[in-house]
Amino acid sequence: MAQAALGLDFGTASVRAVVVDVLRGRELGAAVTPYAHGVMDRRVPGIRGALPPDWALQHPRDYLDGLRQAVRGALRAARTKPERVCGIGVDFTACTILPTCRDGTPICYKTAMNRQPNAYVKLWKHHAAQAQADALNRLAQERREPWLKHYGAGVSCEWLIPKAHQVADESPEVYDAADRWLEAGDWVVGQLTGDYKRNACAAGYKGCYVPGRGDPSPDFLRALHPKLAHLPSKLPREVVPAGTRVGGLTAEWARTLGLKKGTPVGAAIIDAHAAVAASGLSAPGEMALILGTSFCHMLLGAGDARDDCAGISGSVRDGILPGLMGYEAGQAGGGDLWAWCAEACGNTALLKEARAAKRSVHEELARRAARYKPGATGLLALDWHNGNRSPLNRSDLSGLLVGLTLSTPPEAIYRALQESLSFGTRTIVENFERQGLPVNRIVCSGGIAHKDPPFLQMLADVTGREIEVARSTQACGVGAAILGAIAAGPDGGGHPDFASAAQAMGGVRARRFRPSKEAAKTYSELYAGYTELSDYFGRGGSDLMGRLKAWRKP
Amino acid sequence: MAQAALGLDFGTASVRAVVVDVLRGRELGAAVTPYAHGVMDRRVPGIRGALPPDWALQHPRDYLDGLRQAVRGALRAARTKPERVCGIGVDFTACTILPTCRDGTPICYKTAMNRQPNAYVKLWKHHAAQAQADALNRLAQERREPWLKHYGAGVSCEWLIPKAHQVADESPEVYDAADRWLEAGDWVVGQLTGDYKRNACAAGYKGCYVPGRGDPSPDFLRALHPKLAHLPSKLPREVVPAGTRVGGLTAEWARTLGLKKGTPVGAAIIDAHAAVAASGLSAPGEMALILGTSFCHMLLGAGDARDDCAGISGSVRDGILPGLMGYEAGQAGGGDLWAWCAEACGNTALLKEARAAKRSVHEELARRAARYKPGATGLLALDWHNGNRSPLNRSDLSGLLVGLTLSTPPEAIYRALQESLSFGTRTIVENFERQGLPVNRIVCSGGIAHKDPPFLQMLADVTGREIEVARSTQACGVGAAILGAIAAGPDGGGHPDFASAAQAMGGVRARRFRPSKEAAKTYSELYAGYTELSDYFGRGGSDLMGRLKAWRKP
Repeated sequence: MAQAALGLDFGTASVRAVVVDVLRGRELGAAVTPYAHGVMDRRVPGIRGALPPDWALQHPRDYLDGLRQAVRGALRAARTKPERVCGIGVDFTACTILPTCRDGTPICYKTAMNRQPNAYVKLWKHHAAQAQADALNRLAQERREPWLKHYGAGVSCEWLIPKAHQVADESPEVYDAADRWLEAGDWVVGQLTGDYKRNACAAGYKGCYVPGRGDPSPDFLRALHPKLAHLPSKLPREVVPAGTRVGGLTAEWARTLGLKKGTPVGAAIIDAHAAVAASGLSAPGEMALILGTSFCHMLLGAGDARDDCAGISGSVRDGILPGLMGYEAGQAGGGDLWAWCAEACGNTALLKEARAAKRSVHEELARRAARYKPGATGLLALDWHNGNRSPLNRSDLSGLLVGLTLSTPPEAIYRALQESLSFGTRTIVENFERQGLPVNRIVCSGGIAHKDPPFLQMLADVTGREIEVARSTQACGVGAAILGAIAAGPDGGGHPDFASAAQAMGGVRARRFRPSKEAAKTYSELYAGYTELSDYFGRGGSDLMGRLKAWRKP
Repeated sequence: MAQAALGLDFGTASVRAVVVDVLRGRELGAAVTPYAHGVMDRRVPGIRGALPPDWALQHPRDYLDGLRQAVRGALRAARTKPERVCGIGVDFTACTILPTCRDGTPICYKTAMNRQPNAYVKLWKHHAAQAQADALNRLAQERREPWLKHYGAGVSCEWLIPKAHQVADESPEVYDAADRWLEAGDWVVGQLTGDYKRNACAAGYKGCYVPGRGDPSPDFLRALHPKLAHLPSKLPREVVPAGTRVGGLTAEWARTLGLKKGTPVGAAIIDAHAAVAASGLSAPGEMALILGTSFCHMLLGAGDARDDCAGISGSVRDGILPGLMGYEAGQAGGGDLWAWCAEACGNTALLKEARAAKRSVHEELARRAARYKPGATGLLALDWHNGNRSPLNRSDLSGLLVGLTLSTPPEAIYRALQESLSFGTRTIVENFERQGLPVNRIVCSGGIAHKDPPFLQMLADVTGREIEVARSTQACGVGAAILGAIAAGPDGGGHPDFASAAQAMGGVRARRFRPSKEAAKTYSELYAGYTELSDYFGRGGSDLMGRLKAWRKP
């Protein structure tokens, strides 16, 4: 009887558990559990007052409660005997970090600290550490820090050091109480095994850790903030590639989940990166495009390719697949923008029609938006509602809509946001190629990849490239399961390496989206307008967006 | 027993009849009738296919049907004996024009022509003659036409010549069938009296007619389009100031309306201009600000003040009040923008709350928007959904929203539109003063002036000036009645002139809105951003808006 691996995919709003057949990648069962507290971006239960703008917190208990329920559900759905599960893998949003005690207890569990917003998990999209990121980038440039070149767009306010720095600035008592700073993915693996290690993927892409060189120097960190000098000593000492066996499942967790004690648990990976293996990608020039609440672009490069690139988030050797360069770029908003549109744009007739047809407002908007021809809305948008990650790395940027008239309907805005996200992807792909990194293949995954064929066609038309789709509708979960199979190893019923596991368990669908020449022409004209707006508002023409954010009040 | 005058106020969507006491301006009764066909901007009943973008037509029969019903209603409400009505005045949107036969029969009534959209009334906001307006402005500049200096912003596509030119270009058979081209206000007066005269207000502000100089020369018009050479001969020969007695009510209309045969009917005035007298304004430096579907700014200047001004729509001697210069500027969108917002921005929760509280979506948005402090939305908008009238005179411009985030709610958009309209007004006021025309007093009228005190406060804060409000909630209607009283003359129970009539029948309310210093400071910073955006998109930084409009398809 073939073995199965368990993948745990921790997203922004929920955790998904997937049981995957190790030999052929069949998904035997899955279950999703939303986080009880969701994303805390307005208030934290038990804490008075509203959070300032740009905050996004989570509650660590939600991860464990969620995984308990999701794993049980997935095992039930898979009708799998516990002994068939040969390994467990984890993927997690990043940089999603929390301060903990030596034993891994989150600081926010402590009565003395639980009224401090800074004691909670800072979710990847927590954007309130921009001042700290600015200071870091300024100082690193002044000092010509050697690690800076790997992060072409500079260090984001979403990353480890600015987030920890914010805590040191605003809540020194929380900072001092923390014995450890952990990526939430490493924390979950630590909870399951009792061992805390640092996954090389998050360390490389979000932690400024460079293999062979280590963390930024205490000297640099001290210059940034005296307390930060000790930050590296609060990070797990051992940095291991994703999928490396961190330890075995504890007796307690084995009992809770109904799995074998000692089941190997692999080091975590960033959620988006998990999709690369699940898409069956393993060659230079192949790009996984993850279409989720935000969009991520993971490009593989030859092992000897450059490790410094302008306008990308990170170039990390062995960061995605061993032996290859891994480049990460991204759009800070993706499906989130459409969700925003469904929340902000609509009218009585549209809502009524949606209700009558038993569609969500979102679905109704998507349906109507699909009827437009390219450019027919008369609108152009910048997809920056959540800032720009690549190529500008600026969270102070914001969304823009131009071309509004008195007859612009909600669905035109929805359509313009779709187009703007496609233009954002084209910008990223063109930037890769301008840096000498060919993009030969694009495979999409994530919810939108399977739910929204018109958007995939738009991506093909706008980028002028064929768009493929990952086989699995839960690619990150399958990617996590691939890590579980690697952690199990060939002797434990798993796989010896990434390539073998990805080939067996990942892959794409038969249906491909090919660019239409006619649409491509109109989109190229619109894209010129998008680039104009991007340059004006993002590259120094006007600093208005930053000023607007500064004036905003909660 | 005091006499009464009847005012007929033809707006964009409806006609209002008001019976006003001639001595003290008491409004004795009023009634409103919407036009059966409303604004035809998508299709014309009986004509196949959709209208192209930018079209806005009306059906002339609606004006007569509407006035019949409204006058009867107003007289009933006023409980006035027919013999008490001493005169009738008319105000009308402009330039709202129609081609007719010699006897005044609209060309669109003819079976051979009624399937031609170009045969119908072109409403003021019909914006499909931009190409013709561009050609006219180019040619007039080349030829240094002497009348051009009165129209600082150039000739608008909303005006008489471009609209007639569009018909000559697109439907020569309609153009040739027309014996007359009439402002709808002059047409209605002609229908009531049997006499067709041209009101000096519309002729001056929308028809390029200059007192003492006449219409643009046949030579110029021929160069524009051979058919246009004869356009002046198709306009009523006699140009008379608003309120001049054109004729007496015909027997048939007297019977229909229940009024005396021969009741004096005054020459029409543009709707916005009617508000000046109704606001009790009669001195240089006084400005009437009409807050309707669009906003109009009518400033009085000394009789010897300049008659050429950059960035305003028109400077016409005696154009508003005899003996004074009248300057007209405007915002092409006003209340229309909020109506757009209520149609395009909303979500289930907001709509539910509105329904539960028996408020319209519009009211719910306004209520929520009023809770923001200045700048607190983080948004900035350009109020150009319907183009920019002053100071740029460009209908190819469009609305813009910048500063959108994933948490921007619909009411923030509503608020940003309110702020943008206030900034647009400040731009117009500052432009007047830059041209050496002081603005000492601002009196608002129109629906919004009475329904939306938070917006009036915003206008005060943004402009840094005291804002007064006209006494009447139907200032245009009262202004029209003032014309009726003038047409009646002192011997007929009316008034000898504008000043006497305006003093007796117009005026302002006691409540004034005074600028807050604190709000003014924030708004000044935001206004700098507004000016930046205006200059970039409206003054040559980027021609993106024009390109977007060109790509748009119906």
